[in-house]
Amino acid sequence: MMNRNNNPVLPNMPEPDAEVLDIMKSLVSSDYNTQEEKDFFAANIAVKRVKKGMFLLKEGEAIKASYHLFKGCVREYYYKDGEEKTVAFYTAGESLTDGGNNLNRVPSIVNWECVSECIVSVFPFEVEYEMYKRFPRLESMCRVEVEKQYSNYKSAVNQFLSSSPMERYEHLISTRPELFQLVPLYHIASYLGIKPESLSRIRGRMRSSAPTK
Amino acid sequence: MMNRNNNPVLPNMPEPDAEVLDIMKSLVSSDYNTQEEKDFFAANIAVKRVKKGMFLLKEGEAIKASYHLFKGCVREYYYKDGEEKTVAFYTAGESLTDGGNNLNRVPSIVNWECVSECIVSVFPFEVEYEMYKRFPRLESMCRVEVEKQYSNYKSAVNQFLSSSPMERYEHLISTRPELFQLVPLYHIASYLGIKPESLSRIRGRMRSSAPTK
Repeated sequence: MMNRNNNPVLPNMPEPDAEVLDIMKSLVSSDYNTQEEKDFFAANIAVKRVKKGMFLLKEGEAIKASYHLFKGCVREYYYKDGEEKTVAFYTAGESLTDGGNNLNRVPSIVNWECVSECIVSVFPFEVEYEMYKRFPRLESMCRVEVEKQYSNYKSAVNQFLSSSPMERYEHLISTRPELFQLVPLYHIASYLGIKPESLSRIRGRMRSSAPTK
Repeated sequence: MMNRNNNPVLPNMPEPDAEVLDIMKSLVSSDYNTQEEKDFFAANIAVKRVKKGMFLLKEGEAIKASYHLFKGCVREYYYKDGEEKTVAFYTAGESLTDGGNNLNRVPSIVNWECVSECIVSVFPFEVEYEMYKRFPRLESMCRVEVEKQYSNYKSAVNQFLSSSPMERYEHLISTRPELFQLVPLYHIASYLGIKPESLSRIRGRMRSSAPTK
């Protein structure tokens, strides 16, 4: 459920604990960044712990910030004919953003739900713009990064579209085994484009055909 | 078929005709660009007419340039179990690029085939890098543009994945009717993820249910 005042993340955060403080420190201690850049990050990027079940973005809202995930799992989904359709899972090391929609203040059609407890950094878009203005070399890095992400996403989509449900499942379990610890199976079934019963059958078939030791 | 010396586009181009010259002129006459930028474009971006059946990129090649399409249609496809799987069509106004793969010199897994005669501008990656170095404001514009494209692509994928073949067909014919003039139906069937026979049935059903005037 969304928090009451519709902020994208929990409004009343407890004091940052040791784990969160460590992440905040790592954000402003990279050898790669200049002192001026680090000061900017320290002043403008928050790191937050978000409870399971909370949302970073809800359908109909305009997205206001990018998030980087340090822990946990966020599920991206939307409604189609009244049913939830899961389209992505984000885990530690991945970012959630949507530059295009942000620019046009388009209401989001997707939801970002924390399906386990998460630790995220929150990077509001106005801070991002300010950063690009002040540190052009960071904008250049971001352009390269976005192009890489876009390219990887296209490859993943092509791979997905050309696979059978069985192949999709095998690919997911071999490339992202951690998902199976973080996400209920019915969300994974939705992501694979199959019914939960079909996923159970596939898993049963794989177990029974696994080589015995 | 690829041209013999494996250049991405026809190596021996005829002299630019009036249509091509007009496009070249439009590239270097925008009010938006400074004279220095226009001079850079004029010196570094080629506009070419490419025959139907030629490739801008072949599987296994590292992509070396971005292309912007002024006329015609390019089909993106790859092989899956020996069969062609069409994943995208690009038409006038759209660009073909792949920043991520270019950076890593990764051999492409897709083919870009001109399915009708095309006019494209060719923008080699080394020219792109040079442009970013010399004109940071253009890099900033490109970052915004890539983010928008990425965002639009994600929306289109979500829309596609949540649709039935019939809905996909209806969406395609209402949003990109020109494709049906430019591309054989069996490529469109492949793109929709169905057999050509199924596409014929869908088209037949739609014709028979269309209101008579």
